[in-house]
Amino acid sequence: MEIKLIERKEKKPKPNQNNLGFGQYFTDYMFEMDYYLEKGWINPTIKPYGPINIEPSAMVLHYGQSVFEGLKAYLDENNQIRLFRPYKNIERLNKSNVRMCIPEIDENMVLNAITELLKIDKEWIPIAEGTSLYIRPFVFASDGNVGVRPSYCYKFMIILSPVGAFYQEGFNPIKIYVEQSYVRAVRGGIGEAKTAGNYAASIMAQSLAKKKGFSQVLWLDGVEQKYIEEVGTMNVFFKINNEVFTPELNGSILDGVTRNSVIQLLKDIGYKVTEKRISIEEIIQSQKKGELEEVFGTGTAAVISPVGEIWFGDEKMVINDNSAGKVTLRLYDLLTKIQRGKVEDKHNWTVKI
Amino acid sequence: MEIKLIERKEKKPKPNQNNLGFGQYFTDYMFEMDYYLEKGWINPTIKPYGPINIEPSAMVLHYGQSVFEGLKAYLDENNQIRLFRPYKNIERLNKSNVRMCIPEIDENMVLNAITELLKIDKEWIPIAEGTSLYIRPFVFASDGNVGVRPSYCYKFMIILSPVGAFYQEGFNPIKIYVEQSYVRAVRGGIGEAKTAGNYAASIMAQSLAKKKGFSQVLWLDGVEQKYIEEVGTMNVFFKINNEVFTPELNGSILDGVTRNSVIQLLKDIGYKVTEKRISIEEIIQSQKKGELEEVFGTGTAAVISPVGEIWFGDEKMVINDNSAGKVTLRLYDLLTKIQRGKVEDKHNWTVKI
Repeated sequence: MEIKLIERKEKKPKPNQNNLGFGQYFTDYMFEMDYYLEKGWINPTIKPYGPINIEPSAMVLHYGQSVFEGLKAYLDENNQIRLFRPYKNIERLNKSNVRMCIPEIDENMVLNAITELLKIDKEWIPIAEGTSLYIRPFVFASDGNVGVRPSYCYKFMIILSPVGAFYQEGFNPIKIYVEQSYVRAVRGGIGEAKTAGNYAASIMAQSLAKKKGFSQVLWLDGVEQKYIEEVGTMNVFFKINNEVFTPELNGSILDGVTRNSVIQLLKDIGYKVTEKRISIEEIIQSQKKGELEEVFGTGTAAVISPVGEIWFGDEKMVINDNSAGKVTLRLYDLLTKIQRGKVEDKHNWTVKI
Repeated sequence: MEIKLIERKEKKPKPNQNNLGFGQYFTDYMFEMDYYLEKGWINPTIKPYGPINIEPSAMVLHYGQSVFEGLKAYLDENNQIRLFRPYKNIERLNKSNVRMCIPEIDENMVLNAITELLKIDKEWIPIAEGTSLYIRPFVFASDGNVGVRPSYCYKFMIILSPVGAFYQEGFNPIKIYVEQSYVRAVRGGIGEAKTAGNYAASIMAQSLAKKKGFSQVLWLDGVEQKYIEEVGTMNVFFKINNEVFTPELNGSILDGVTRNSVIQLLKDIGYKVTEKRISIEEIIQSQKKGELEEVFGTGTAAVISPVGEIWFGDEKMVINDNSAGKVTLRLYDLLTKIQRGKVEDKHNWTVKI
C-alpha cells in the first residue's frame, strides 16, 4: 500500500536539544491509518502533526482498548538514520494487539510507515549527548459506541518525539521502594501487553513514590506479593555474586526489547544470566550476605538505569555505595554505542534507513 | 459556574424506539468541561454532539488515565424526568477519580450538568417498554505528553444515548461460564474503579465467551481464582436455600448502585442478604444439594439479568429450569417501577428534574 503524503505549509521551530525532557515535543509529521471491519487497514497517510478528531463515544476513551510501542531512532556519524531492533517492537505490537482483540497490522507496513516518517522528519533527530528520536506507534479503538465489546474500527498512528534522558537523574542511580500495597498486574491479566490499562494501574503507586522522594516502585507479583516483576516501567536485573538474574517472563511482565538485548550482551561478555522467579526475600538475603553487587532497570526510554537504593518498608538496601556498578556502566556504554553505530553490531540488531 | 450553551442549527432524526440496542445512538447535545493544573475545572459548556479534537499524544490514548459512570434517565407518566440515585454515581465518579489520580469534580456541578443536558435533550428520552436514556459521564487525561505521570489537564464530558435492553436475550436468562484462565482484577489493583483498563482487561475473555455461545463470564478473584467476583460487567447475586448472597466489596469488585439498591430491596421484602466471600465450590455444592434457587446479575445497563446456566469446565449447572426466578422477577419489577415512578419510592432514591 502506498502512503499518501499531505505536506505542511510551514515547519515548526525545533526545541533546544539540551533541554528536551521526555515526550513533550513532537515533530512536523505523523502517520495515520484506519481499520474498518469490512475493509481492513486502509488509507495509510503521513500528514502534519496535529490534533485528531474522535467521537466522544470512541471506545478507547471508555474501555481502553489500545496498545502502543516505543522505540528510538539515532543519527550516526555518517548522517545515517539507525533503528534498534524494530522488528522486535513490531512483533510485540502485534502480540499486544492479539491480547487486546485488536486486528494485527502487516509488519512490513509498520516498518515502512516508520521509515517514511523518519525520512521526512529526519532533521528532528537530535544529536546532543544522550538524546534520540523516540518513536511511538499506537493503536486505539475508534468505534463510537458505548457497548462493551471489541471495537469494529481502529486508528493506528505513529508520532515522533525528540527526547533527552528519561530520568531527571540522568545516569545517576535511582532510589526505589518495594511496593507492598498496590499491584500492577497479575497472571491471567494484561500485564504482558503494552496496553494503556497497565500504565493506568501504575499511576497511583508511581505518584506516591514521587511524593516520598523515590523515582519508581519495585513491583511484586499480584498473587503472592513476594516475587519481583518490574521496576516502574522497566525490566529489572540483579548482579549477585558475579552472576546476573532477572525475573522470568510469566505473562504479567513485559517482554522488553532492551531486556532481551541486555541478556544477550551479558552472555557475550561472559556472564551467566538466569531468568527465574526471584523473591524479594532472596534479594534481601543476598544483600545481607554482601553478595548483591549491582541492580539496574532496562527499557527503551531509559536504556539502562542504575538502582542505588531499594527500600523495603523502613529497611534500606544501598547498592554498590549508591553508584552505578561496573557491569551496569559497561552495558550502558555497549548498548548505546551499538545503537549509534559506534561499535560493531555483532547480532545485526541495527536497521539503517 | 454558569454553563455556556452553544445551540445546534438542526436537530438530528431520532432512532426507532423499538430497535435501539445499547449505546449506538447519541442525542443532539453533549456537556464538556476542561481542567488545567493552574485553573481547575473551567468552561462548562453544552454544545452540539459531535467529534472532539484531541492531541495524538493525549495521555488517555497511551496510558488510559480515565474514568466513567453510567446512569439512566426515565420519563414518568407526568412527563417528568426521573434520575435513579444520581448522587451514588457522582460519589463513585469521584472515588474512581481519586484512585486514578484525576482531580475530583464538584458533585453539584456534575448533577447540574446532567440536569441541564437532560432538559435540552428531553425529547430524546425514549418511552417504549424497557427503554431509557443512558447517561455516560466520563473524564480523561488530555495532556499531550508521552511521559508516564498523572496528566496536567483533563476533559470531563457527558453524552446521552437512548437505549433498549442491554442483552439481546432481553430478560431471558443468560448462559455464563466460570472463567478459569483470564483474570479481570486483583486486590491492590484498579478493579474497584470504573476505569477503562478494567474493561480492556475483560474484552478477550468476553469475546471468547461470545464465540462459544455464552453471554458473559463469571469472574473469579485474581489471587486464588476460587472466589466469585462479578459476572461480565455486572455484580452477581445467589439465592440459596431462601437466603441471598453476594460477593463482599473487596477492592477489586465494583460497588454497584444497582447492587446496593437490590440489597436494600431484598431486605425490604424480608430476605436475609449476606455479603461475603463466596467460593465457586460453595455454589457447586449448593447446586448439588438442590439449594441453588436463583442467580442474577445487577448493573445499570441491564438492571437485573437472570442467569439460567453456569458452566464450570464441562459441568453444567442449570438454575431454576433455565427460567427467571420469582425473586429475580420481583426485584426487576420493583426496581424498574421505582425508577419510572410507578410505585412508592420509600428510600427517596429518585431525583426529579
